[in-house]
Amino acid sequence: MSLFVQKYGGTSVGTPERIQAVAEKVAGFRAQGHDIVVAVSAMSGETNRLIGLAKQIQSDPDAREMDVLVSTGEQVTIALLCMALKSLGCDARSYTGGQVKILTDSTHMKARIQDINVDAMRADLDAGRVVVVAGFQGVDEHGNITTLGRGGSDTTGVALAAALKADECQIYTDVDGVYTTDPRVVERAKRLEKITFEEMLEMASLGSKVLQIRAVEFAGKYNVPLRVLSAFEEGPGTLITLDEEYTDMEQPLVSGIAFNRDEAKVSILGIPDTPGVASRILSAIGDANIEIDVIVQNIASNTSNDLTFTVHRNDAGKAKAILDALKPDLGAREVLTDSKITKVSVVGVGMRSHAGVASKMFDTLATENINIQMITTSEIKISVIIDEKYLELAVRALHTAFDLDLASGEI
Amino acid sequence: MSLFVQKYGGTSVGTPERIQAVAEKVAGFRAQGHDIVVAVSAMSGETNRLIGLAKQIQSDPDAREMDVLVSTGEQVTIALLCMALKSLGCDARSYTGGQVKILTDSTHMKARIQDINVDAMRADLDAGRVVVVAGFQGVDEHGNITTLGRGGSDTTGVALAAALKADECQIYTDVDGVYTTDPRVVERAKRLEKITFEEMLEMASLGSKVLQIRAVEFAGKYNVPLRVLSAFEEGPGTLITLDEEYTDMEQPLVSGIAFNRDEAKVSILGIPDTPGVASRILSAIGDANIEIDVIVQNIASNTSNDLTFTVHRNDAGKAKAILDALKPDLGAREVLTDSKITKVSVVGVGMRSHAGVASKMFDTLATENINIQMITTSEIKISVIIDEKYLELAVRALHTAFDLDLASGEI
Repeated sequence: MSLFVQKYGGTSVGTPERIQAVAEKVAGFRAQGHDIVVAVSAMSGETNRLIGLAKQIQSDPDAREMDVLVSTGEQVTIALLCMALKSLGCDARSYTGGQVKILTDSTHMKARIQDINVDAMRADLDAGRVVVVAGFQGVDEHGNITTLGRGGSDTTGVALAAALKADECQIYTDVDGVYTTDPRVVERAKRLEKITFEEMLEMASLGSKVLQIRAVEFAGKYNVPLRVLSAFEEGPGTLITLDEEYTDMEQPLVSGIAFNRDEAKVSILGIPDTPGVASRILSAIGDANIEIDVIVQNIASNTSNDLTFTVHRNDAGKAKAILDALKPDLGAREVLTDSKITKVSVVGVGMRSHAGVASKMFDTLATENINIQMITTSEIKISVIIDEKYLELAVRALHTAFDLDLASGEI
Repeated sequence: MSLFVQKYGGTSVGTPERIQAVAEKVAGFRAQGHDIVVAVSAMSGETNRLIGLAKQIQSDPDAREMDVLVSTGEQVTIALLCMALKSLGCDARSYTGGQVKILTDSTHMKARIQDINVDAMRADLDAGRVVVVAGFQGVDEHGNITTLGRGGSDTTGVALAAALKADECQIYTDVDGVYTTDPRVVERAKRLEKITFEEMLEMASLGSKVLQIRAVEFAGKYNVPLRVLSAFEEGPGTLITLDEEYTDMEQPLVSGIAFNRDEAKVSILGIPDTPGVASRILSAIGDANIEIDVIVQNIASNTSNDLTFTVHRNDAGKAKAILDALKPDLGAREVLTDSKITKVSVVGVGMRSHAGVASKMFDTLATENINIQMITTSEIKISVIIDEKYLELAVRALHTAFDLDLASGEI
């Protein structure tokens, strides 16, 4: 018999009927003899409703009081889920973050978990009860209510699993696992049986938003086996594990093709080829709290360079204004922005031990006549910036080239 | 400068706009230099919404989880009110019942307050902050969330005032004070400047539902001056005080005329005149958790009696069924019920020192040809049961007879 921590998101508990369906699922696991701790989100829409009330009262709501307010969302869910479990004859007890207690720092609205007291939960599990914990929330050393920020319920689930040394942390969501790429782009995208934490981080930060990055980092750090499953359908989902758990035989070269449509390219042309220029430019952008992703510098001539980088599309105008202001002082020729770009990445721990991934990627794109505008690489991923009109073509071609397509007959 | 505990009910905080209006009121008192602790209810409708969710899931919701659920209602209000105060530049801090902490027993859904820790609130007041406390809720010795039952926010206000030794506990509501009788029945009903705790208890339990009985009892026990005021209009409201604070001169004979339309009369006729019969009948009713109010026994003949009592109208059918079942065994002749009755009471501490209230009451009713079916008295009230069709006539006649009518020109 195992100890599972199960996390159910807002959509999974969005109505009384869905809460009853979750209760049936949980009671089923309990009936098999497993110990179950459940972490839940607020019912879908509830957090936004509460934020809406706050904004009617204070345009920039006080962070401490915001946490008092929005933490009620999960508190409603834990009570309703326990009622549903009890009505099925399954004994259960609810805990707010403060009741557990989940100790965090005092950074309201994005607190970090410091410690979890497992005593009360252990006693309940020993007494045969299902434990239901409010996700997303905790309490600081002074007893103030804190929240972990959006998506923090995943982090709660993983942290509970780590503290309780659970056999698995199961994240129930509205997709049935992690896919080789977005099935809306590639019909033959496959659900992955396994993926490593590192690959998952690259996939998540590149736009495959199945899990919160912080939760995956946390799971990796504490080596908590993490499984993503559907709250609505049966199935094994995708297991997210440490690298070592792959055997060489099954390790794929590339695990998935990720993409991100949210970036824009900013270029500053004809800047003097002297030390410190790039640093001045990038510091000015950083000072404006604009995050930079890919950076490439080309030598344009003997005496001047072109610097190109990508930022979130929402920040492109702001970045251009900053560079336009710097232009005369730098002696630069021109500032350009281009929002019609997309980033496509191949991700896989297999790259570490296999050469040739980059050339295969570039060949594939060349065959399709797709021009590569920028390239950036890490140990387990290669990303290219291309014209956004080629997004679907590029992702499909790479998916096929790296043998990720679902074979006919597979489901 | 004074320390006031102010309680605002659900209607007063029913919308973001109303919460802002309450904040302006509170900030105004604070600007005058007073220390203010505010206890608030859930926004009107919210508690019923939450109960509705629970009932969709469990027909008889688990009491512990019900408290976890409904306590979120006040938690939302404290956060929003603090935001509103801060947006007015008035520093404030919110506390849930558990955060204060308001220690209660473990009787979920109708817990009783055992102790209140005032340290954190004192520190906030000393730092110039308004303290905003969630009404209606507390926490037991094991850290479980408890609630005080419907209307418990009044009790929270009074308990906070007692613990903090506040100068006054001000209950803001949607009426501007306690009236000599219901102004919907008697147009010339007057707002009372003062009323004693005991009178208020008699008025409240008789149907003038301005304040929760428990809150009044609590205020009387700890001698907390209690004032009922309107949240929407300016005015002094009604002060509820100890008897001693009246001088003889201003002490009225009768303070008010209360009535209750919710009772029904149950009679069992022709029961044998032997010891223990009344006890058997009333025990059977009590065992069914039916509360009995007025009881009268008449001698019908040399050998048999009639016993008549009143219960809540909702319980009349159940009471009759119980007596019908007992009838053969008792040798009783007949069981009758009558729901077309009403109870009318004159209330006043002045009765203690003045004779003649009862005869004046009965004379007044006789003059109007109103037949008295039952009579019951206490030290400070006389109640009669009459046909409900005479309710308005009786209340108006008594209101005039005891000099309670608003003089022309008064407002």
